[in-house]
Amino acid sequence: MRQFLDARRVGHLATADATGAPHVVPVCYAIAGATLYVSIDEKPKRASARPLKRLANIRQNPAVAVTIDRYDEDWRRLGWVMLRGTADILADGDEHDRAQALLRARYPQYAAMRIEALPVIALRIGKATSWGDLTPG
Amino acid sequence: MRQFLDARRVGHLATADATGAPHVVPVCYAIAGATLYVSIDEKPKRASARPLKRLANIRQNPAVAVTIDRYDEDWRRLGWVMLRGTADILADGDEHDRAQALLRARYPQYAAMRIEALPVIALRIGKATSWGDLTPG
Repeated sequence: MRQFLDARRVGHLATADATGAPHVVPVCYAIAGATLYVSIDEKPKRASARPLKRLANIRQNPAVAVTIDRYDEDWRRLGWVMLRGTADILADGDEHDRAQALLRARYPQYAAMRIEALPVIALRIGKATSWGDLTPG
Repeated sequence: MRQFLDARRVGHLATADATGAPHVVPVCYAIAGATLYVSIDEKPKRASARPLKRLANIRQNPAVAVTIDRYDEDWRRLGWVMLRGTADILADGDEHDRAQALLRARYPQYAAMRIEALPVIALRIGKATSWGDLTPG
């Protein structure tokens, strides 16, 4: 399962607001121990704008799910891993900085971006489930 | 937005249970009018098994989100569309049969599968939001 997670490049983060209405967006991620880190690399379009919905939802309801999967037109190769648990928002500090270093190591695209001041979502993995073909590649 | 949705092949369906705990899985989909249909092509592994979590969640809480996105290592090409609304589970009937015909037309893989008796999730789209590059292809 871990090899599959390391080999994939994009995950999907699902959150829900206080009323249970779901929200799901593609995310970049890195894993260390039993925590999956998700970068926030978008700022609201205007400084006065509301915070990102995914962050507002986590503040209301910390239960989250992240699914990492492979789609292939050969459906024998379909596979997914879903990680569920509770999320912390890391605004700064040692763990925040280590998480950003892991994300930068996995995604060279971040080299051109200033993400240091942006928060990181830390999913404390409580449960991992999977389906299908999890061979990496 | 519609051209982007038609060009993509996989979406991610997020549901949440009565406590607001999210769940997200990759899904095949087809769109007609203001409804997005998601096929159920897996049976529980055993006849005695619990129903699929996505269906159990919708029965508890019909609010759902489906996101269709493009990942590309050239991040200028990233883009997503999120459709939110409430879901019906169609067990049979005219709309169920039309939805399965649309899904079969989009996915030739279904030709080898017996999906007629399986339910279809119908997302009544209430809100569509998007981000990034939505050029098809």
